[in-house]
Amino acid sequence: MSNEVYEIAIVGAGPAGMSAAINAKARDKDVVIFESSQVAKKIGWAPHVDNYLGFSKVSGEELAEQFIDHIKELEIPVIKEKVVQIFPMGDQLMLTTNGESYQVKKLILAIGVVQEAKILGEADYVGQGISYCATCDGRLYKDKEVLVISDSAHHEDEANFLADICETVYYIPQYEEIKDLDDRIKVVREKVKEITGKDLADKVKTDQQEYEVDGIFILRETVPPSEIVAGLELDGKYIKVDREFKTSVQGIYAAGDCIGRPLQISKATGEGQVAALKAIEELAQE
Amino acid sequence: MSNEVYEIAIVGAGPAGMSAAINAKARDKDVVIFESSQVAKKIGWAPHVDNYLGFSKVSGEELAEQFIDHIKELEIPVIKEKVVQIFPMGDQLMLTTNGESYQVKKLILAIGVVQEAKILGEADYVGQGISYCATCDGRLYKDKEVLVISDSAHHEDEANFLADICETVYYIPQYEEIKDLDDRIKVVREKVKEITGKDLADKVKTDQQEYEVDGIFILRETVPPSEIVAGLELDGKYIKVDREFKTSVQGIYAAGDCIGRPLQISKATGEGQVAALKAIEELAQE
Repeated sequence: MSNEVYEIAIVGAGPAGMSAAINAKARDKDVVIFESSQVAKKIGWAPHVDNYLGFSKVSGEELAEQFIDHIKELEIPVIKEKVVQIFPMGDQLMLTTNGESYQVKKLILAIGVVQEAKILGEADYVGQGISYCATCDGRLYKDKEVLVISDSAHHEDEANFLADICETVYYIPQYEEIKDLDDRIKVVREKVKEITGKDLADKVKTDQQEYEVDGIFILRETVPPSEIVAGLELDGKYIKVDREFKTSVQGIYAAGDCIGRPLQISKATGEGQVAALKAIEELAQE
Repeated sequence: MSNEVYEIAIVGAGPAGMSAAINAKARDKDVVIFESSQVAKKIGWAPHVDNYLGFSKVSGEELAEQFIDHIKELEIPVIKEKVVQIFPMGDQLMLTTNGESYQVKKLILAIGVVQEAKILGEADYVGQGISYCATCDGRLYKDKEVLVISDSAHHEDEANFLADICETVYYIPQYEEIKDLDDRIKVVREKVKEITGKDLADKVKTDQQEYEVDGIFILRETVPPSEIVAGLELDGKYIKVDREFKTSVQGIYAAGDCIGRPLQISKATGEGQVAALKAIEELAQE
């Protein structure tokens, strides 16, 4: 576990997260961003952005570069680990990633469009045989059979980790090109139809056959937020916040696309700013 | 009266108003900004701004220039008239300025920090002998005595207008240098203490004497919003809005500093964006 206690941790390096970070830093707070994927990734996809005040006729890529320069300029650290769990620990929060644990005082979720449970049956078995983190839960399946559903080559490391532990690893990629997968893993090019089971999920039906396994891993770029934070209330598919951008969990704020529409850059940066300032206010009261 | 019906009018050219404008324009709406003072004026006062994402180490002046360039680039018209009244007219709104009237479908108030009634007694006589617009109400005081309290040389034109109509015009400047005031106006360098009267306000007490007049004009850079829009509900000193940035008056939205703290640029641009998108949504439903 890292011994440093961060005053403000931000999960997600999109516009909301980056804006929260620069605002916290501008107030001299000890701030850190967690982002397992690329910083400002989705902005970079936009061919052009014409509605972020101050930048006319800019491409998404150019805007993303400006944003990245800003957080580099302020020397805000970005930890490139995937956050898998956050839980209260006294008056602080404990944040665990694939490989490490961190203590933080206040936390801002800026995780972008919320990933819903997408596979038929998935929502019924969250935490009941379905896991979203191989390195966290892999050891539960030592010498057993597991099936991994993965939406990106980024997760191949996690699958390889399972190959070292488990007897059999089936791997259903939901993307084209396999990058660096362990030879012991059995790649299955089939379409997932449903997850079923009795008390625990143990069957995956595809368009071609049925796999009966001991554990199922769903590895996605984003994890459902209620999976990361126990007791986090949602409002439909978005994270529920009050007018101060506080979530239902003490010390945790949320901003940007994850709290609702419109899914726009300015809206996200504005919310990130307010969430950070509210978190700082609350820090000062402690 | 202008014959054009604007789809979206924005009152105020600070960050909230400018962001609302570029968002409306980006969606091909017929948009106009009303700003009697300088565009992006207050941003320009900041020695430096470090918490607007995408611009690190920028001066307020440089940032203001970028914002102004953006609205110029999109060819958004700025009408340099002071809005003095807004009222519903069927399913549209009528907006009157010092000299002109305009029809608009939706309106966004982005008028910055709300000016409160500051003078002792002022709040009791709003619309009861106190007026905030000389060119609007001046004719009511033909050949009578009026007193003008003014916070800026910008209002001297309005006072000069009164000099043509009224018997006597007292003028209490709350600023240093008189720029271009009509010789017939009696400049009074005294400190205003209180406004009193019976049914109507008709006395102004200063630190030196008492003036009994027929009408009192208070000319300020910003007019209290409830003076501009009848029935506009406030929440403390801010304009009350719901989560869609709608005010209590149909068709009127508000964003930025005028709806509450923190008084920050990103917060304002984000709100301006959302208010504009909500107004556009509502336009489409008509």
